[in-house]
Amino acid sequence: MKKKKKVNAAILIIGNEILSGRTQDKNVAFISFWLNKNCGISVSEVRIIPDVEKTIIDNIKIMSKKFNYVFTTGGIGPTHDDITAESIAKAFKVKYGYHKEAYKILENYYGKKKFNDGRKKMAKMPLVAKLIYNPSSAAPGFITKNVLSLPGVPSILNSMIENCKKYLIRGLKIHSETINIFTVESNISKELSYIQKRFKNFVDIGSYPFFRLGKIGVSVVSRSTSKKKLVSVRKDIKKLLKKKKIKIFNI
Amino acid sequence: MKKKKKVNAAILIIGNEILSGRTQDKNVAFISFWLNKNCGISVSEVRIIPDVEKTIIDNIKIMSKKFNYVFTTGGIGPTHDDITAESIAKAFKVKYGYHKEAYKILENYYGKKKFNDGRKKMAKMPLVAKLIYNPSSAAPGFITKNVLSLPGVPSILNSMIENCKKYLIRGLKIHSETINIFTVESNISKELSYIQKRFKNFVDIGSYPFFRLGKIGVSVVSRSTSKKKLVSVRKDIKKLLKKKKIKIFNI
Repeated sequence: MKKKKKVNAAILIIGNEILSGRTQDKNVAFISFWLNKNCGISVSEVRIIPDVEKTIIDNIKIMSKKFNYVFTTGGIGPTHDDITAESIAKAFKVKYGYHKEAYKILENYYGKKKFNDGRKKMAKMPLVAKLIYNPSSAAPGFITKNVLSLPGVPSILNSMIENCKKYLIRGLKIHSETINIFTVESNISKELSYIQKRFKNFVDIGSYPFFRLGKIGVSVVSRSTSKKKLVSVRKDIKKLLKKKKIKIFNI
Repeated sequence: MKKKKKVNAAILIIGNEILSGRTQDKNVAFISFWLNKNCGISVSEVRIIPDVEKTIIDNIKIMSKKFNYVFTTGGIGPTHDDITAESIAKAFKVKYGYHKEAYKILENYYGKKKFNDGRKKMAKMPLVAKLIYNPSSAAPGFITKNVLSLPGVPSILNSMIENCKKYLIRGLKIHSETINIFTVESNISKELSYIQKRFKNFVDIGSYPFFRLGKIGVSVVSRSTSKKKLVSVRKDIKKLLKKKKIKIFNI
């Protein structure tokens, strides 16, 4: 459990319902925020793909090599379109079948009589996988190599996320600081780019316009693993705002 | 303007604010829904990536080859972190600079006096690009080869989407039909998979659990380019529900 290394992750959202626009994804923001806050892990890429076996396999292969961790969401339920577990087994060329521990958990939860084929399917996964316990609806998620598989339903996923922690190496947390101002971006863009240049490689400064109470505003967000550097950036931004006579406010 | 071909698209969301979980993306659902409804274009993949030049270039190269269209969102504003336009020019190895028409639009909009460097930056893009007009805040989007670049702010993006239409070939619209029932997925999963098998290659059937009024329900969503096949699937699903004594309801 070493600290002080940058650790990254990717999220692979598996589901036609998100791609088609029918359902608004809520898992990316939740996982990304949680990972940084609790484990110091930054999400570096997200992909949303359909329930197509070859597509899942290809993406698992690429992403599991490229990132420290991959979180998949969706496709681990009891129906025919739930093909995440089998696709991951195929991507890693490991055996797929009834996972003893998962089977036991589900059999206990439903009782032998009500443990039908659909429910049994949720115990099928890569045999080498370790379980991510599910306090809401029993059906466990699982980790195969560096790929953690969670369900798509946000309330269930949210209830399981703490149980991912034990499988994750902790990295350097990224701290962030937001300064909200009522002005247009182009009013500060030049000077802001100088500040960004001075802190290149240490701080990422982002500028995000918004509309509020009929006025145009900008959120200037600085992100860094160093709290010290953030303080320096804040000072520079405050100087710039003073010069331009722009006031900071809280939202 | 031929009809009756499958046309696909990908969406590339460019922005640290989405990846970090600070901001909830709303553009994927909007673009995807609009494209299918108005142009018969299906979104086949979405990627969310940071404001990093190399990452943008690599993704533009891969995705513009793989899909009929790529929609980018974000990174076309006036600040230093807005690097989408220049990255696209580099990806396609085309000249980047002041686009005459875009420059004129912005100069007219702001007036010569208020047309500062930040605002001028929004006229910089691949010179070969054609413009996507912006009725909200003037700064145009643009299309470079098969890549359409739109801003990240949802209200502005939404106001521009109609102006993308003229650049898009119309494809086969995917129709969908949703049947909502109060049951658990595992109760219908086996029979539903038989129906899916019968209509393989014609209809995609998805099963999505939900929670409502303290009860567990399932939305069964069928998607197809053929309305006829959807009617047949609906009949089969209704038969299944009758047999299981499950009632359909509207939400």
